[in-house]
Amino acid sequence: MTAGEIDLDFERAERIGLEEAIYCAGKSSAQIAAILETAAGRGTPLLLTRLDADRLAGLPAELAAQIDYCAVSHTGFFGPLCPADGPARVAIVAAGTSDTPVAREAERVLRYQGRASSMILDVGVAGLHRLTRRLEEIRRHPVVIVCAGMDAALASVLGGLVSGAVIAVPTSVGYGAAEGGRTALNAMLASCAPGIAVVNIDNGYGAACAALRLLHAAERIAKA
Amino acid sequence: MTAGEIDLDFERAERIGLEEAIYCAGKSSAQIAAILETAAGRGTPLLLTRLDADRLAGLPAELAAQIDYCAVSHTGFFGPLCPADGPARVAIVAAGTSDTPVAREAERVLRYQGRASSMILDVGVAGLHRLTRRLEEIRRHPVVIVCAGMDAALASVLGGLVSGAVIAVPTSVGYGAAEGGRTALNAMLASCAPGIAVVNIDNGYGAACAALRLLHAAERIAKA
Amino acid sequence: MTAGEIDLDFERAERIGLEEAIYCAGKSSAQIAAILETAAGRGTPLLLTRLDADRLAGLPAELAAQIDYCAVSHTGFFGPLCPADGPARVAIVAAGTSDTPVAREAERVLRYQGRASSMILDVGVAGLHRLTRRLEEIRRHPVVIVCAGMDAALASVLGGLVSGAVIAVPTSVGYGAAEGGRTALNAMLASCAPGIAVVNIDNGYGAACAALRLLHAAERIAKA
Amino acid sequence: MTAGEIDLDFERAERIGLEEAIYCAGKSSAQIAAILETAAGRGTPLLLTRLDADRLAGLPAELAAQIDYCAVSHTGFFGPLCPADGPARVAIVAAGTSDTPVAREAERVLRYQGRASSMILDVGVAGLHRLTRRLEEIRRHPVVIVCAGMDAALASVLGGLVSGAVIAVPTSVGYGAAEGGRTALNAMLASCAPGIAVVNIDNGYGAACAALRLLHAAERIAKA
Amino acid sequence: MTAGEIDLDFERAERIGLEEAIYCAGKSSAQIAAILETAAGRGTPLLLTRLDADRLAGLPAELAAQIDYCAVSHTGFFGPLCPADGPARVAIVAAGTSDTPVAREAERVLRYQGRASSMILDVGVAGLHRLTRRLEEIRRHPVVIVCAGMDAALASVLGGLVSGAVIAVPTSVGYGAAEGGRTALNAMLASCAPGIAVVNIDNGYGAACAALRLLHAAERIAKA
Amino acid sequence: MTAGEIDLDFERAERIGLEEAIYCAGKSSAQIAAILETAAGRGTPLLLTRLDADRLAGLPAELAAQIDYCAVSHTGFFGPLCPADGPARVAIVAAGTSDTPVAREAERVLRYQGRASSMILDVGVAGLHRLTRRLEEIRRHPVVIVCAGMDAALASVLGGLVSGAVIAVPTSVGYGAAEGGRTALNAMLASCAPGIAVVNIDNGYGAACAALRLLHAAERIAKA
Amino acid sequence: MTAGEIDLDFERAERIGLEEAIYCAGKSSAQIAAILETAAGRGTPLLLTRLDADRLAGLPAELAAQIDYCAVSHTGFFGPLCPADGPARVAIVAAGTSDTPVAREAERVLRYQGRASSMILDVGVAGLHRLTRRLEEIRRHPVVIVCAGMDAALASVLGGLVSGAVIAVPTSVGYGAAEGGRTALNAMLASCAPGIAVVNIDNGYGAACAALRLLHAAERIAKA
Amino acid sequence: MTAGEIDLDFERAERIGLEEAIYCAGKSSAQIAAILETAAGRGTPLLLTRLDADRLAGLPAELAAQIDYCAVSHTGFFGPLCPADGPARVAIVAAGTSDTPVAREAERVLRYQGRASSMILDVGVAGLHRLTRRLEEIRRHPVVIVCAGMDAALASVLGGLVSGAVIAVPTSVGYGAAEGGRTALNAMLASCAPGIAVVNIDNGYGAACAALRLLHAAERIAKA
Repeated sequence: MTAGEIDLDFERAERIGLEEAIYCAGKSSAQIAAILETAAGRGTPLLLTRLDADRLAGLPAELAAQIDYCAVSHTGFFGPLCPADGPARVAIVAAGTSDTPVAREAERVLRYQGRASSMILDVGVAGLHRLTRRLEEIRRHPVVIVCAGMDAALASVLGGLVSGAVIAVPTSVGYGAAEGGRTALNAMLASCAPGIAVVNIDNGYGAACAALRLLHAAERIAKA
Repeated sequence: MTAGEIDLDFERAERIGLEEAIYCAGKSSAQIAAILETAAGRGTPLLLTRLDADRLAGLPAELAAQIDYCAVSHTGFFGPLCPADGPARVAIVAAGTSDTPVAREAERVLRYQGRASSMILDVGVAGLHRLTRRLEEIRRHPVVIVCAGMDAALASVLGGLVSGAVIAVPTSVGYGAAEGGRTALNAMLASCAPGIAVVNIDNGYGAACAALRLLHAAERIAKA
Repeated sequence: MTAGEIDLDFERAERIGLEEAIYCAGKSSAQIAAILETAAGRGTPLLLTRLDADRLAGLPAELAAQIDYCAVSHTGFFGPLCPADGPARVAIVAAGTSDTPVAREAERVLRYQGRASSMILDVGVAGLHRLTRRLEEIRRHPVVIVCAGMDAALASVLGGLVSGAVIAVPTSVGYGAAEGGRTALNAMLASCAPGIAVVNIDNGYGAACAALRLLHAAERIAKA
Repeated sequence: MTAGEIDLDFERAERIGLEEAIYCAGKSSAQIAAILETAAGRGTPLLLTRLDADRLAGLPAELAAQIDYCAVSHTGFFGPLCPADGPARVAIVAAGTSDTPVAREAERVLRYQGRASSMILDVGVAGLHRLTRRLEEIRRHPVVIVCAGMDAALASVLGGLVSGAVIAVPTSVGYGAAEGGRTALNAMLASCAPGIAVVNIDNGYGAACAALRLLHAAERIAKA
Repeated sequence: MTAGEIDLDFERAERIGLEEAIYCAGKSSAQIAAILETAAGRGTPLLLTRLDADRLAGLPAELAAQIDYCAVSHTGFFGPLCPADGPARVAIVAAGTSDTPVAREAERVLRYQGRASSMILDVGVAGLHRLTRRLEEIRRHPVVIVCAGMDAALASVLGGLVSGAVIAVPTSVGYGAAEGGRTALNAMLASCAPGIAVVNIDNGYGAACAALRLLHAAERIAKA
Repeated sequence: MTAGEIDLDFERAERIGLEEAIYCAGKSSAQIAAILETAAGRGTPLLLTRLDADRLAGLPAELAAQIDYCAVSHTGFFGPLCPADGPARVAIVAAGTSDTPVAREAERVLRYQGRASSMILDVGVAGLHRLTRRLEEIRRHPVVIVCAGMDAALASVLGGLVSGAVIAVPTSVGYGAAEGGRTALNAMLASCAPGIAVVNIDNGYGAACAALRLLHAAERIAKA
Repeated sequence: MTAGEIDLDFERAERIGLEEAIYCAGKSSAQIAAILETAAGRGTPLLLTRLDADRLAGLPAELAAQIDYCAVSHTGFFGPLCPADGPARVAIVAAGTSDTPVAREAERVLRYQGRASSMILDVGVAGLHRLTRRLEEIRRHPVVIVCAGMDAALASVLGGLVSGAVIAVPTSVGYGAAEGGRTALNAMLASCAPGIAVVNIDNGYGAACAALRLLHAAERIAKA
Repeated sequence: MTAGEIDLDFERAERIGLEEAIYCAGKSSAQIAAILETAAGRGTPLLLTRLDADRLAGLPAELAAQIDYCAVSHTGFFGPLCPADGPARVAIVAAGTSDTPVAREAERVLRYQGRASSMILDVGVAGLHRLTRRLEEIRRHPVVIVCAGMDAALASVLGGLVSGAVIAVPTSVGYGAAEGGRTALNAMLASCAPGIAVVNIDNGYGAACAALRLLHAAERIAKA
């Protein structure tokens, strides 16, 4: 791919309210650099996801220096960041320590789009008291993103306890019958708690985008 | 199961804003009748889903007479229905004729909970002009439920065209590689359009509940 | 198969403490009748599982008359039943009404082997209060059999709340991503609560046998 | 994850009789170190599972020095070990040499909780005489943990020969149709020997926990 | 398909030593009748497999009358049967009563091709003594066909005990994790006993053909 | 494999109009070198596919020097290249940057066989305007190869907009529910747009060969 | 669905050269009747696929009378049929008798669009001579549709023998490891013969449409 | 595992006619060395399979020096080799170059047990003439082992052309829809040619053992 062949979707924010983001996993450092230069040429900031340390190290130093990088979530902000205003309307809840990278990805994507959020970690249902003692805090947010792997039981339990929107992200945590996150995915889809909306495995980015769409909808309704 | 063993979740509406619904597919007519009598004894209305014609016919006549039944979606309203007020905030969009039962189930569940919605049928992307000529109408709704089977491409295309919340319901329409709806499910989860939230295969009920949760969240935000 | 070719495992009880049981699903009424006659000739009682109404109706009337049949669990006791003595050491807990047949099969198998048990139905985690209000009752039993389909979250939640043995039975309740019980099975195997032992989908019989083995072990330890 | 965000379940032993264990596979050395320091601060010992040599090497030397590490099973005991008392009530039986790591993990977890066990290795059914010559020894234990991969036939054969509790652990040994342990898992679940309880693939930890739950139950029954 | 379009492979016996057989499952009674008439016109006998009672009943009476039908195995011999000579060189061993149809199909196909065989039924490994007491009888046959479903452990145990050729047929007996015979199939392929050759699920016909090929090979070697 | 054992299909071009190509993924550098030498000895050019940088580096320098290598598509032309004549009849359309290697492989294979083609990259349906603004250009080609991963919606949308032949190549781009390209494969096979022909995942080579067969067919029809 | 909600894609033929076809499998007789009436009102003929005998019988007699129905392929022509002109450019080749319905569906769809084709049945590779004796006839057609189930080896063998376009249709013929056609599908996609284009399982309609697209492309090239 | 815990099955050859073989893939160099020393102590030769170069390099030099190693098939002969006598009764036929390692493993295992065999490589059906020109040579062997990946069509074609025993080994050659050898496995099991016996994916060892069992059977029949 030469620079002339790149066709970024810069109109996306205008059309659907979400900025174009660059998914780096399938791209070489050279391809990512070409994209960053195109954006820099237009003065457009960019969100980078699945940017691992090797690809980051392969970028020209002057480009890498403009990236605010998070090693836990493998996300990067390229260019200036808009301020986050207003209260945190999204709670990001994760079952275990191993789910943190996905939760953090969701938090970073929301932040990039100017939205604050609250993190509630390590509240898996094997120790239900850990969840119940933070339930009131969770309920204060109209939107809840739940990150859980293995049996994903946290999503069902939360879904039966909160009345707001629940966006569930299965994670690939676990082994054997966890099937790389497919069991968590299926359990969330087949949840006994009604109205849980699900995104792809490990897709913290997608969960944040679903939350952003929902906040757009809420703001339209509030204005109407 | 004897009547004494039934433990319906009548507090659900208070807790999470969604009325208890009875999923009839795995239950005998006798079990359903016992549940209806319990509800009737309390004066509580009930929503019935996956109630096929055979089970309906197996109910005592006096109970069956109190059910407002829809043969397309296999749903029933037992007891008085609350009025639907306000504008339709949810558009229910379906790719083909065969997706109608799922779309109708979503519409009926919303109606049961007092929410109006708009139906836009037969807009599959194989004839893209059918979708584009109804796009403005769809965009007027802050929430869109998309029902599609087979390749589920409609969800991705719509997701790239509207800025509101998109809840996608894969349907089991198709054969062979459609894998009973699993291909549509996976395609929606792996959509190239960001922020699409997905529910279980053929789960019009779940899509409606996700929309209701979202409207709750929106109303909380509007009040804040 | 002629009568001469039948080779029932009548020594099983002596060898492993579990009576031979006849799994009827893959057998014709004629084959089942031949087995019953062999047992009757020896004066041996038999446990019949997965005996549906059609096969039962196909048996000679004099054989059918000797069967104590349960239409919910599709089990039959052929011949005299030994008395159940002692307290109920096994709690059988089920998430929803649709899981009742599996729970009942477990109860009947335990009863056939002379063991009492307690049934706790309709305590799925979507309404967590239903479970917590019966938790003390469940905890009084050293062994808990949990029956749940769909997301099977009940097994994980219970596993985090009780210290006794937990035997989990996934059920085929649900559709789509429930994958005929495979999601519940995998979720139980990948549970975040440690030490949950799992049997096959819808295998109430196997759960009861696992409980019986455990009670044998406990009695040996008690005597030692 | 900062230290302030860690919420270990230190009440677990009191609640369900099993100490909190740290599953290290999805965690960085830094995360593990933070957890160990939290535990050290409270004076609480910890069990570490799936701790590979690389993560161990990445820990600060003073923490690593406090770990009693087993390179075969990838387990570590952090802090003082309680003594094991009483006779070995659990036999751990493994089909082949390649199943040893899983068997050893079960033995180590039992030991951590103060329980002795007996190891019987290399008794796969392809050479049935190897099993039969150790059968009496196995039968002396009321609880048997069976570790087997590939066809997992050992679990069925043993299940037909012993009357005690049988906990089966499928291992990921084998290739092709062994499907990474799924064939062994399914074969154990579908065993022709009744009452076999199954845990996740390679889950020696889970098998030990199931045995511990069972011993708790047995001791309650013995006291009653 | 009109009679003119039928192109039976009548040269098959000459080419590979196996007579053409008609697999009836996917054919209508009319198609089967057309095939039988073609064969009758040439004076060629035919073997019919998977001929269920409905399709048999749908054949013209004069054709049906020429079929020697076995209701257990759903096989039919159309036309005169050649005599079976020589000793039984093939033992057909089945684990349980439900495996009988598959075992019988193998027996019938061998008989059609003029080969005697011995049936040993109901020797599943859950009661190992049933197998060991017939082991000498099985060992007298140089070729063993093993039919087993569920965990298929019988194939591995036998494979470790006999030195002759072992042809394993997985059956679809069982439910849930038995996965319609796929677990038995995979367990046979991944058997810990070396040199087991496997055919398709429920394919008693294929097992018999594999045995016939093997007998051809043996006879060529004997002559050499 | 020694040189004497190599049996290349040099008659292939004559028989089916496609040159023999060497799939290098499963071969060692030594095996590839032996094949190249055989071809060099006959003066036959060869197309190499899936030739990664490591294998290329492992070839003797004099052989490597004769290879026109493309690092994006991992293809190599060994020996002289025939000229490409005539207009580009094939459009190669790709959804995203990550699909480029597959698209480039198709382009290179066509070029090797003397056919020009046009590349249209980065026209995924999440930004539909990018596709529509290049639609006329695409329509000028009677044959369209579509490369897309994840949901593969581009294939369905294009299939509903062009009247020429559509050959769809699923790519392994994406994660989780993208299932390594299987979701894209199934979505293309189950497309709501009729008459889309599909090749294997990431098989740019196969798509080019299918296009070449089609051009042969077209030229035969044109001559008739 | 009411008549007012039907939105047939009558412009399809103009846009992509293929007439709108009605897939009847997921529709009720009432829905099909509504569609036929809409078409009749416009004077537009329609192609009906997957129209089984029950649905046909459920149509109003006056509508049913206008359908030219084929019971083998379950297809119907509604309204006048355009004449087929020109030579047969498509050979439809099927492996066995059970593949006939799929082959016939392809033939009927081509005929509906005015294209003649040749049927070559019963040429499966288990009797290779049956194929070779018809090879010249097959080669006379520039386009070959291959229908095969089970191992689908016919597609690979033909693909190595003909130079024209090959469109492969896997069929659901077979059992067990045939996996309802998925094995044939995968074998065709992974064929060792290059350039085979594949459509969905049992999708004779799709194969015909792919052939029609190809003939359009060929005719454009011929005119250029 | 300490040396004292090793329990090799040295009686295997006596019992089933096959020497014990050591599958090295799941074992450390230390474990393999312990096994070799045990065998050396008894003066017993050993066959080693799946012994990769790294594990070989990890063995003590004096042990490694006693191994006759084949780098293509990853097999080793430890200790003296018995002579191979008699004619080659087994033909090993492979579809492509990439199947060579599996074919060579079969050849080496046969050789270890004193049996000669003939190798026929590179005869895949995409160039059918390559197979037909070696058909007479293949037919001279009463037993044929067929190694093929991808579509595995070679097994079906050969199965229709030879009358001897056919043992099919699917290989993991191919990508995407080849599914790591599962497609080849399923295609062989569902082959349209009757009587093909199948072993596990890439299991050249198993194919050789099946051939050895068959030769035992043949020799018994020849003597009878």
